[in-house]
Formats: sequence, C-alpha cells, structure tokens
Amino acid sequence: MKKAILLIIDGLGDLPTPKTPLEAAKKPNFDALAKEGICGLMSPVDKYVVPGSDTAHLQILGYDPHEVYPGRGPLEALGLGLSLADGDISFRANFATVSDTKVIDRRAGRVDTITAAKLAKYLSMKIEDVEITFRSSVEHRGVVVFHGKGLSPNITPTDPHNENLEISRALDPSAQKTARIVNEFTKIAHQRLSNAVENKGRTKPANGILLRGAGIFKSVPKFSERFGISGLCVAGGALYKGVSKYIGLDVAEVIGATGEQNTNLDAKADAVINGLKTHDFVFLHIKGCDSAGHDGDFKTKTEMIEKIDKILPKLKSTGAYLIITGDHSTPCSRKAHSGHEVPILLYGDERKDNVEKFDEISCADGGLGHIFGKDIIPMVLNLIEKAEKFGS
Amino acid sequence: MKKAILLIIDGLGDLPTPKTPLEAAKKPNFDALAKEGICGLMSPVDKYVVPGSDTAHLQILGYDPHEVYPGRGPLEALGLGLSLADGDISFRANFATVSDTKVIDRRAGRVDTITAAKLAKYLSMKIEDVEITFRSSVEHRGVVVFHGKGLSPNITPTDPHNENLEISRALDPSAQKTARIVNEFTKIAHQRLSNAVENKGRTKPANGILLRGAGIFKSVPKFSERFGISGLCVAGGALYKGVSKYIGLDVAEVIGATGEQNTNLDAKADAVINGLKTHDFVFLHIKGCDSAGHDGDFKTKTEMIEKIDKILPKLKSTGAYLIITGDHSTPCSRKAHSGHEVPILLYGDERKDNVEKFDEISCADGGLGHIFGKDIIPMVLNLIEKAEKFGS
Repeated sequence: MKKAILLIIDGLGDLPTPKTPLEAAKKPNFDALAKEGICGLMSPVDKYVVPGSDTAHLQILGYDPHEVYPGRGPLEALGLGLSLADGDISFRANFATVSDTKVIDRRAGRVDTITAAKLAKYLSMKIEDVEITFRSSVEHRGVVVFHGKGLSPNITPTDPHNENLEISRALDPSAQKTARIVNEFTKIAHQRLSNAVENKGRTKPANGILLRGAGIFKSVPKFSERFGISGLCVAGGALYKGVSKYIGLDVAEVIGATGEQNTNLDAKADAVINGLKTHDFVFLHIKGCDSAGHDGDFKTKTEMIEKIDKILPKLKSTGAYLIITGDHSTPCSRKAHSGHEVPILLYGDERKDNVEKFDEISCADGGLGHIFGKDIIPMVLNLIEKAEKFGS
Repeated sequence: MKKAILLIIDGLGDLPTPKTPLEAAKKPNFDALAKEGICGLMSPVDKYVVPGSDTAHLQILGYDPHEVYPGRGPLEALGLGLSLADGDISFRANFATVSDTKVIDRRAGRVDTITAAKLAKYLSMKIEDVEITFRSSVEHRGVVVFHGKGLSPNITPTDPHNENLEISRALDPSAQKTARIVNEFTKIAHQRLSNAVENKGRTKPANGILLRGAGIFKSVPKFSERFGISGLCVAGGALYKGVSKYIGLDVAEVIGATGEQNTNLDAKADAVINGLKTHDFVFLHIKGCDSAGHDGDFKTKTEMIEKIDKILPKLKSTGAYLIITGDHSTPCSRKAHSGHEVPILLYGDERKDNVEKFDEISCADGGLGHIFGKDIIPMVLNLIEKAEKFGS
C-alpha cells in the first residue's frame, strides 16, 4: 500500500547573502532527491503573505486557517497535553518577575524548567464558575486554560512586552467576564507566587504570570474523517503537536525530540519508519532552522540543514513518497518570518524535472511550478491513491 | 474572423514507466505544433484533484461543476438524445441477468446493441404520476428518465456492483416517492423482460435493469448567451454530447464517431472543418486514450496518440487557433483517473516558448505555466477577440 512522508523544516526558506543557507549547505542527500524527483516553490498560505508557524501548518495539513485558526493559546495547550472543550479559552503564559505595577523581567531570569513545574501547583484555581488550569512547559513558558460558561477571547493581553504591567480589558461587551477573571487570576497568582517557598532567595522571583495569545477552542472535523487516511505527527515542539491534536492526527512521543537544535533527528526518523507501519501518512516536523533564522545565525541554520541531510537516506529507504518543504521563510537577514515562497521537493515513483539542487533558486525552475499550502494534502491523496473522484 | 478549435484527448496525461505514452509515441505533428506554439500544464478542476470526465469537461467548457454538476445520469440521457425538463431524474441503466434476489451477470452477457434496442419497448411506462422513458445505447448500457412532480436524486442505486440485488432507499424524506417508483419500475421491468420474446433461448437473459448515477436536471445559461460566441461539439461518446447539450453547444452528428478506439478520426476532423464555417468555436473530443489507460494498455494508448497525430495537419490547415489538452490523466500504471496535471498546447498567431515536444515533462517548462480548466474559455475568448472587456 502506498504511503507518504511530509517533512516540514520550520523556517526553511531564506534570502541570498549572497547565498542562502540551503545554497551554502553541503547536502548531498537533499540534492540527490531533487535530481531524482520533482521540485517547485510553495506559498504556505497566500502569495507573499507572512504566515505564523501555526497558520502555515494548519493550511499545509489541509485546514484553512482563515476558517479554523483558534489562536495560539489553544494550540499550545493541546500540545502540552491538556484536553480542551468547546468554548474553553487558552493563553500562552510567561512566568515573570513583577512588582505591583511594573514588569522587572518578562522571563523571571529564565526560570528553570524544574522550578517552573513546581510553581504550577499554585496556579490551578476556580474563580466564579471558571475552572483554571496551568501547565508549564520549557523554562518560563506555559499555558493557562479557562473552562466555564460565556467566555470570550476578545480581551487584551496582560503581557505588556515592556515595563509597565497592564490589566486586561474587554474588547467587546461579551468579553467583560473573561477580562474580570483574567485580572483576578493575575492578582491571586501574584499573591501566591510571591509567598511560594520555591521563590525564596531568587534575585528574580517568578512571582507573576503574563498572559497573551488568547484563543477559543472549537473542535474541527478529524483528519481521518475528512481525508479518509490515517495520519501521525512526529514533532518535538508543543505547537506542532498541538496543531496535530487539534486536527485529529495521532502524535508520536519521541524521546529526545526537543523542538530545538539539539533534537535527536535519528530518533525522529526511526519514529517515522515505525509510524508508517500503522499510518498512511506521517508528518515530520523539524524546528531548528527557524530558531537559527530568528537569531540571524546563518552558520547554525546551514549546519542544521546539513544535519537533516544525514537522516534523509533513512526516510528514503521506507519506500514512501517523500515531500520536503518548509512552513515559511525565516531569512537570517531579517531575524523574522517572511512571505517568500519556500522550496518543495517530491520524491517517488512520479514525474521528474531537470532541477538538480534543492534550494530557493533552483526550485523556481521545477516541474511542480508555484503551488500553495492548500495543495499539499490533495497532492498526498493523489500520490497514495486515496483521493475521492469528483464526478464520474 | 478568428476561430478556435479545442481538442480534448480524454485521459491524455500519464506517469513515466519510464516514459509516458506521449513521450513514447511517434508524433511529429504534435511536436511541431509544440515547437511552433506555446505549452503548459493544466489542472482540469483543482490542483491534484481527481476529476471525472463529466466534471472536468464542464469546468474546461466554462461551467463550474461545483455549482452546476447534475450527476452522470442527466448528462448521459441528454447525450442519447432525450430531452429533459427541470426536475426530471435520470439514471444510467444496465441490462442485467437477475434472479429475484441475485445479480447473475451485471451486463446480461454483454447483450448486443440490437437486442437491447428491441427490449427498450417494454420499459417505457407510467407509475403514479411519473412518466418513465428508457433509451438503450451500446450493448447493455442505457438511461432511464423519470418525469413527474416532487422527484429527488437522493436515493441509493439499485446496481449493487456485486452479487446481491438491492432495492433503492431514500436518503432523505423528500426522496421516498422516488425510491418507491424506482423499486416498482425495477419489479415491472423484471416481469416484462422475463416474458419478452427477445430473451427466449438466451443463456443470460437481459431480464433486469440496474440503475445508478441518479441526477436531477436543472437548465443552465446557454454557452452562446454566457460567452457571446457560437460553439459546436464533435464527439462520439454520449457523455460528451450530453455535456455539450446541457450547456447549449450545438452537437454535430458524425457517422463513424464511436467514442471508441475504432472511431473515424478523419470523419471527425472533417466535421470540425465543416463546423468552423458556422461556429466560432469547435470542441473536438477523442476518447480512445482514456479507455486504454483504464485497461492499463500502454501500447494502445501510445498508438492512439499516433493516430491522432495524423489528423493534426487537417486541423492546422483551418487557420483556427488550436488548443490541445486532456480532461484528466489516466495513467496506465493506475488503470484509473488521477489528479496529475495534463499537458496543454496552444498553436496560432501567438506568443511562443522553448518547448519542443508535447508531453507531461516538456510542457512543465512551457510559457503558459500551470493553468486551470476554468482558464480555457477565457483563453479562447481572448484569442478570437470575443472577450468582453472588464471595466473601461
């Protein structure tokens, strides 16, 4: 039975300075696949639109983010293993060092992951009818979920991204309850964390919680029901697991998959090979290139590409169709996402073209032409012969 | 005055094994037109979507099948020369050999066309207020039309595609009358056909009618009114004539046009030449490549392309613009439609490109780029200078 692997290298695309990281990298396996396969360029969402990783992944995985994007909070919460019900409001949360009116440090001196996990116990509470759940992730990061009636995501964040502490305001009348509960939660969290034994002796106590990225959860049709195939996600980062859970992909737990540059790529490749035994489609996410792009670190981005190159023979050996692309460009010269197309490569028993290298410039001549994120799942269904015929 | 020919070669696109039939065929005239013209690739409906021949033709001829696809039944009925009124339900019908509960042979031993035509007289009847018309076509095939009030296509087929005979069930409450009439028709047809003198002595009597492809007719704006040009269809197969009648193209009757590999291509080319005297636009349909693809018969598909090649000088000699493409790919390796793009070629007094051969791989480099079925009629209108200006 035919199967497919979709490898999304986060932030893959770049700009030439004078070469792009893909052009500069020694990557014999990428180039061999390009030579034997067919290439092109892809606009993850709309042409030249700058996507977030969340919206780009939704679109590439077959869900139009203009219709179903729930905001970043719910996707992170799902990715950290929380269950959400329709109507729940989720936020991204930061431990911070605060006074009563000012933010001293937005990251509480990058509080360590273990301390943060211990502090979590002070942060689950009930305010009015709303059950509040906190879950920490890495360092100062975490999520907060509100479960209750009549909640709205239309409130301002409490994370000021600058010095002055802010309170949340409702952006429309129906959000007043939610803003009130956010402010009450922020006050109680500050009180409890200030007294926490774990904060004793810390120069920068993690004594405040800043919230942003509010979003409301609404379930969407499952991937398997919508497309008639089973799918598995292999990823380290919480967001990518969260997007996958949101759309109903199974999510592999891979030891050593960190969502960082130190991730265990071999373990992830093994998880893909294993996943193909039980799934028609495996989505493999690799984060490191994006982080390097955000840091403006050309060398690390190039080296990350070279590391990924080394696991490609394993993926090729599965005999599955192999689609390799990015979710957006993160040019090192910009240290930010951009709206440039990303290269895409399809390898398998398929039509070929004359492209010999996998990079932004070579792929512009490819036989796939210029495609869109929304084309990827139809491409997969066509490749593995699971597409439903339209008409007769 | 400028005119245009649109040649649609059914199921033209393929996959390399290691060559595609287009790459393997000796086709000097196709390649000369590609060299002198401009090429590209076309997605008949949406990118990588697998279209039926019916939806693909509607889209290429300027009618969005997402909006106006009436189902296969009405298109086949129109193609066999029946007139339809809004609200009529049409089905594709098979003569079959049946017992009271089982299908013995879905095609009644491929009953011959002449016997089938004789049996038709038993199958027109009135049940409740519904007038039922049967029309046979080739061998065991035919159509049934229901004309009456309050009919619905939302019923299950009676053609089980396997051993056990099935009755039709309504898929929603408004379809109960239709399901009841389908079942009554099936019963009466079985009684009358079982007693028919034409079935005497047949090992596999054509004593049952199986129905599928139910669709409701609703008239659409005529092609000439919608696009301001006159159009003619030259085709052998009933479906293509039916699509053309549905959208209001005139349909040429061509002796020897069978919709099969034995069709008289010269007679069809002559009909095109003749049709251009009275029409701005002639759509020429050739079926044989699709049938070969469905049979997995690479050699026959290749030979069919070589036969078509021989009539191209005739078409070229008209001086009309010549657009050559397919309605979808039918790869021999899949024996089924696929969602791969099809090559397209435009020849005439127009821009050129560097493509020298007409095939799936070469056309990917073409100057037309990657276009869609919906682009073809605007292309025709622009070529023959009949496009209405948008704005001023």
